[in-house]
Amino acid sequence: MKRYIDVCLSPDLMHLYPVKDHIVVVVDILRATSCMTTAIAHGIRSITPFANLEECLACKKDGLFTAGERDGKKVDGFDLGNSPFEYMSPSLKGKDIAFTTTNGTQAIVKSFGAADIVIGSFLNLSSVYEYVKQRKENILIVCAGWKGKVNLEDTLFAGALIEKFNNEIDLACDSSQMAHRLYLQAKDDMMLYLKDSSHVKRLARLNIHKDIEFCLTADRYSAVPVLRNNVLVNAV
Amino acid sequence: MKRYIDVCLSPDLMHLYPVKDHIVVVVDILRATSCMTTAIAHGIRSITPFANLEECLACKKDGLFTAGERDGKKVDGFDLGNSPFEYMSPSLKGKDIAFTTTNGTQAIVKSFGAADIVIGSFLNLSSVYEYVKQRKENILIVCAGWKGKVNLEDTLFAGALIEKFNNEIDLACDSSQMAHRLYLQAKDDMMLYLKDSSHVKRLARLNIHKDIEFCLTADRYSAVPVLRNNVLVNAV
Repeated sequence: MKRYIDVCLSPDLMHLYPVKDHIVVVVDILRATSCMTTAIAHGIRSITPFANLEECLACKKDGLFTAGERDGKKVDGFDLGNSPFEYMSPSLKGKDIAFTTTNGTQAIVKSFGAADIVIGSFLNLSSVYEYVKQRKENILIVCAGWKGKVNLEDTLFAGALIEKFNNEIDLACDSSQMAHRLYLQAKDDMMLYLKDSSHVKRLARLNIHKDIEFCLTADRYSAVPVLRNNVLVNAV
Repeated sequence: MKRYIDVCLSPDLMHLYPVKDHIVVVVDILRATSCMTTAIAHGIRSITPFANLEECLACKKDGLFTAGERDGKKVDGFDLGNSPFEYMSPSLKGKDIAFTTTNGTQAIVKSFGAADIVIGSFLNLSSVYEYVKQRKENILIVCAGWKGKVNLEDTLFAGALIEKFNNEIDLACDSSQMAHRLYLQAKDDMMLYLKDSSHVKRLARLNIHKDIEFCLTADRYSAVPVLRNNVLVNAV
């Protein structure tokens, strides 16, 4: 049997998708997994994902930097927010971060138990593809969405990763077909394609057009954050 | 504020979408809502939807015809299965039916509490559009999917209904954007577009190509089944 790739369009549908013996690729394009990729690419040593805000903040006393957002905004008392540009500072090199976000870190925590958990974003699309391609397990892409609802940008990433396989993998269910077809429709101008999407509109109100453009850039980094002992580190 | 239309891609996401004060259009193209539309169009007086198989079967003693499927196959002891062609018989005219299916009737039951519940299919697409257009409430399209997973054909119907509004309505979330864009991609040859979809493949194994083609035909009927006192009757 050919290997398959599947797409879970929302963390609220994860009960339908087994993660055991699967490689899970978690994606939250705007902006959690884009930040994580950027951070690891710029030499941050580790990222510990937390679903819970208080648990994340408590890591401060262990000397970790705290990072994350709720509803798209930086949380009071946290060292860093959810813009990828905050993670490029040379002063963060070699540091460890505790990270929590509205959707992305929840999706990671729900994926615990998978054979491997990989952080995907457009920024490291080709590297993620190379990493998962050389493995044997079936692949499940988990889209973080927005508070349980499906979103377009995470779905497009799923489609982009499927497209990389160039028909050399089975598509397991209609969600993966849909993601792939939407990506083919969008790929020539994703910014334009996404302009009416709910999350882009929400972020536009926060005036972070530059973040969005950055997060939609393919293959800026070769870093592949993977979960090892509940902590994200670079696999490559 | 402009009226909006929203799409819930799976019954397992219904906790995210309020139905109160909304018109809900339930869709299960292959084949529950296509059968219901056909049945009402051919003069069946009423259809009582049941999520539970045993409760449905128990209606036999009240003189109702029993109808439905599990996993795409007719259930032992039931009078009718889930092919629209079974519902065209003149002998069923004026009769009352108790109906249960794997996905469609579950979606109806989960929509209880809405301002109105309407049965949608390609077969009555324009009539459903005319019916919901003249109302004031916001619209939620509930896709029945397959055992909680999103499916392509129900999503395409959602996109087709959105297209009917011709931009005269707001799209509430990314799911409705996705449905609309997929429909625009698919509309010229839906049969071809769906050929790799999981449900069409599943039904093809059951050798019911004729059913699929029928269910994808637009505007064959003017009937609009709506729920009144927990029973589906014709609104028009």
